[in-house]
Amino acid sequence: MQSFSPTPESIPPRSVTYELGTTTPATKIAVHLHPLNPLYFVLRAAQVFPEKLAISHPDVKDPVFYNYAVWAQRIQNLAYALIRAGIQPGDRVAVIAPNSPLIADAHQGIIAARAVICPINFRLTTPEVAYILEHSGSKLILIDHEHVHLVKGTKLPVVVCNDTGRRGDPYEEFLSAGRKFSREKGWTGLVWEPDEDANAALCYTSGTTGRPKGVITTLRGSYLAALANAYETGMTVDSVYLWVLPMFHACGWTYPWAITAAMSTQITLRAVSNPHIWNHFLHSGVTHYCGAPTVQIGIVSSPEARRVPQPIRAIIAGSAPTAQLIGDLETKGITAIHVYGLTEVKITTYGPFTICYPQPAWKKLTLPERARFLARQGRGFITAQDIRVVYQPKEGEPLDLNAPLVDVPRDGTTIGEIVMRGNITMKEYFRDPEATKRAFRGGYFNSGDLAVMYPDGYISILDRSKDIIISGGENASSLAIEQELATHPDILEVTVIARAHPKWGERPMAFVILKTECKQKWNGKDDAFAIELKKHAKQKLPGFACPEWVKIVDGLPKTSTGKIQKVQLRKIVAKL
Amino acid sequence: MQSFSPTPESIPPRSVTYELGTTTPATKIAVHLHPLNPLYFVLRAAQVFPEKLAISHPDVKDPVFYNYAVWAQRIQNLAYALIRAGIQPGDRVAVIAPNSPLIADAHQGIIAARAVICPINFRLTTPEVAYILEHSGSKLILIDHEHVHLVKGTKLPVVVCNDTGRRGDPYEEFLSAGRKFSREKGWTGLVWEPDEDANAALCYTSGTTGRPKGVITTLRGSYLAALANAYETGMTVDSVYLWVLPMFHACGWTYPWAITAAMSTQITLRAVSNPHIWNHFLHSGVTHYCGAPTVQIGIVSSPEARRVPQPIRAIIAGSAPTAQLIGDLETKGITAIHVYGLTEVKITTYGPFTICYPQPAWKKLTLPERARFLARQGRGFITAQDIRVVYQPKEGEPLDLNAPLVDVPRDGTTIGEIVMRGNITMKEYFRDPEATKRAFRGGYFNSGDLAVMYPDGYISILDRSKDIIISGGENASSLAIEQELATHPDILEVTVIARAHPKWGERPMAFVILKTECKQKWNGKDDAFAIELKKHAKQKLPGFACPEWVKIVDGLPKTSTGKIQKVQLRKIVAKL
Repeated sequence: MQSFSPTPESIPPRSVTYELGTTTPATKIAVHLHPLNPLYFVLRAAQVFPEKLAISHPDVKDPVFYNYAVWAQRIQNLAYALIRAGIQPGDRVAVIAPNSPLIADAHQGIIAARAVICPINFRLTTPEVAYILEHSGSKLILIDHEHVHLVKGTKLPVVVCNDTGRRGDPYEEFLSAGRKFSREKGWTGLVWEPDEDANAALCYTSGTTGRPKGVITTLRGSYLAALANAYETGMTVDSVYLWVLPMFHACGWTYPWAITAAMSTQITLRAVSNPHIWNHFLHSGVTHYCGAPTVQIGIVSSPEARRVPQPIRAIIAGSAPTAQLIGDLETKGITAIHVYGLTEVKITTYGPFTICYPQPAWKKLTLPERARFLARQGRGFITAQDIRVVYQPKEGEPLDLNAPLVDVPRDGTTIGEIVMRGNITMKEYFRDPEATKRAFRGGYFNSGDLAVMYPDGYISILDRSKDIIISGGENASSLAIEQELATHPDILEVTVIARAHPKWGERPMAFVILKTECKQKWNGKDDAFAIELKKHAKQKLPGFACPEWVKIVDGLPKTSTGKIQKVQLRKIVAKL
Repeated sequence: MQSFSPTPESIPPRSVTYELGTTTPATKIAVHLHPLNPLYFVLRAAQVFPEKLAISHPDVKDPVFYNYAVWAQRIQNLAYALIRAGIQPGDRVAVIAPNSPLIADAHQGIIAARAVICPINFRLTTPEVAYILEHSGSKLILIDHEHVHLVKGTKLPVVVCNDTGRRGDPYEEFLSAGRKFSREKGWTGLVWEPDEDANAALCYTSGTTGRPKGVITTLRGSYLAALANAYETGMTVDSVYLWVLPMFHACGWTYPWAITAAMSTQITLRAVSNPHIWNHFLHSGVTHYCGAPTVQIGIVSSPEARRVPQPIRAIIAGSAPTAQLIGDLETKGITAIHVYGLTEVKITTYGPFTICYPQPAWKKLTLPERARFLARQGRGFITAQDIRVVYQPKEGEPLDLNAPLVDVPRDGTTIGEIVMRGNITMKEYFRDPEATKRAFRGGYFNSGDLAVMYPDGYISILDRSKDIIISGGENASSLAIEQELATHPDILEVTVIARAHPKWGERPMAFVILKTECKQKWNGKDDAFAIELKKHAKQKLPGFACPEWVKIVDGLPKTSTGKIQKVQLRKIVAKL
């Protein structure tokens, strides 16, 4: 940290106040109402802990470290630089970057300019990025130097960041120009957005079916979701958050603001690298990180893995953690917190919406029993309204968007669709009132995720409709099958999809990655392993849910956020 | 707990849903907005942890224990009973009770009926209570059997609670009638208040000068303040909150809702009794309680005091804790959290508004040094806007309510008035637009509390204007003098007020309670003690701030919330 000096324009003036201006005189604003805005949190942190490490970006050629006072000044500089570049309140500003100070700044500075952050997945193709830039109507692009090719030929202004934090970096020059443009009016020269329902972010779905959709979230929602994430995962001023989850994904599940709400420290990693992750687990005091189960499996199976010196909480979403994974994490001193935000829902609900609250009675259970309960998606967050599981509209019948929703019985078996509403649900699909109307059938956001509800009100996700395997007329959940197969001791990771079957219609096919130490054992013995796994499955699953085919693979196709791309596997299977 | 059975009407039906009705069809309400309402928390707790102990009321003739499912049913019964009694949305319902299930129910059930809770201090006189009942326009009174004399002769309907939780208790009959009136429509038969800015509570100031004023707080503010209190004091599902602070006082600083937000357990004590408190510290797993320093001094000096088996957090407000007190608490395993809500401010800001966040550098300090920092009132809460210290309007000049406020320099010496605004500031003085206008001078709530601001932005309370001692033309803060005198090893508690002096105008006079073990030592030697204390003071204070007079007393006049009544001491001194 000693070798790094921020640019002179990153240093706040000696006497700094953190109160933004307003467009109306103070005496005209209700004293007891201030619009909820997640920007408030970083300003508070800069006031209370100016010297505290806010962002650490260590594992790059030019490491960067900012305390809260300096970081807040950079956020202010970014806001002024955007305004200088012509950005107006409500305009969208695109950001394409790996986890780094650039995208962390963007989550604060764009809001400080009263604009809307539009983070774009850098693993998309150039045409996909072009579509999002066009559809979002973005006015400016902030981009990391490694991904500049994605916006080649764009007519929009582009600010490139070489991720150095040093003078000469175009992004640094942009910020410095913002500081000059501010004429040291500081925060009071900026204006609090008076409407807490104003747009905060525009994130795009992965668009597995058709074009990606733009999801609008608000300042109020982001504030309340960030508070909930800080509270529910026990983040405090002593916490250190490690960025494993890509920040572009649903605004990093609102953690950019949860971290500042808790006045914690964040460490940004450009890529998921297990050696770097373990280095920070062991030597940087990391207490929290988020990641899908596949990412978590990689972390616990890494050769660097050992018991961590301080308690760490792993916030898991994307799919349910297996007993094996929960156990592996626990033996390393890492506690799994299972939150729900499968598929699109994470984007449409600011990241997690439910948490699987452990019940006191579970403490007495064995790990596999406990894991079975923990694998459920649980109940609504502290600032969420509770979730419902309702009957889906009948196919073939005309869709009545105003018909009241009907809950499925709480029997753990009747499958319905998860719906939710309330302050941490998206505001709308951007420029798509038709899709918004359909998504809001019955006055709830219809998630498209299928689940059952248990008598205790906890939900358990099954699948997206298309992940249900209709085997001999029975509905088999591929997720449920995966949970059971994963209990085989030689398996590192497993995924199951439907494959056409002449007699049964569909039958499950399993793709398996073996544990490193078991690869030798089964080398060239694929058939023997298939027989053994089927035997294992028969003890735990009904016949129609047992895999008909088993294939050992070295890897699985995954999205940039670590989710297995079943759509790719389906394409392979279709050709078999 | 085994010996207690709730009334049959307290048992929820087998299948219960916790969704309140609305007056508009679901499809007409914005999916992404639900009105903030602290009632939401208890309904959530009843869903997630129905079997968990919600309220324990053990130290009475008829002990009472409710789990969250039963308690929620009782809250629902109360709401229906109130509606049956003619209570309309926005009506005020008065509550006069010590800490007990009655007043805990009232904080939830009155809001569930969309009415406004008006808790009244049971230590007031009959005419004072009559004034508040009249001014608040209360429509009904819920009252504990011990305090019925306070409302003798009232024309309002009165529901008496014998605090038994058993059949035959008039309050229980009232609840049972509510259950029948509901016709088992349950929560859906009640309606969510659609306006989050609707009134939640009406609390009265202690009215040391003139008539008490009624302070209106809102649903939104109560929700956000409760979240902040749960977060800032680390309350979780594993926490046990002990009611030492009277719940009638500023709605128990919003802890009735902070506890349910965290889904914790609460224990109600009818009176501050150190043996009972210690019994629960040692045997009930208490983790949190609130209390003024004088109450805390009583607790740590109690003969029952010993090291507690689990960490406990003592939330302290009312005046600054001394180094002695912080040290005494720490040796028992109790951590002091110093929050600010001096005098009226606690009522006008939902209880605490600031917290003294400990800085990392303080860890290296000695206890007296650390205590000096911890005695400051700190910075705004997570959901509060930050506090300012501004110049007071000049005496004699016409008061301009619209003039912008000017901050005092951050020098730790310039005295100004604390002002605040934002979501956890009161909405208005009830039926007193003139007082509201004056209180909101410059678009902030003008607290009347005097303070200095240090270079790090932390504030340090001095006094109400009238507590400043003008000694030889210098302003001496009685609180600062008290802090220094309290470091004398023989002193249990000390308070300082101004006394007229022929030469200097005013001089400080100290009233001292000695530690039990030191009483013998100074018995009959008041003059010798006075000489010693003055010598002690001279080492720490400027001459004009040293006490001119010292009086050893056995007790000090205190308000019902444990605050020392300096106004009583001033009357005594005026006659000297």
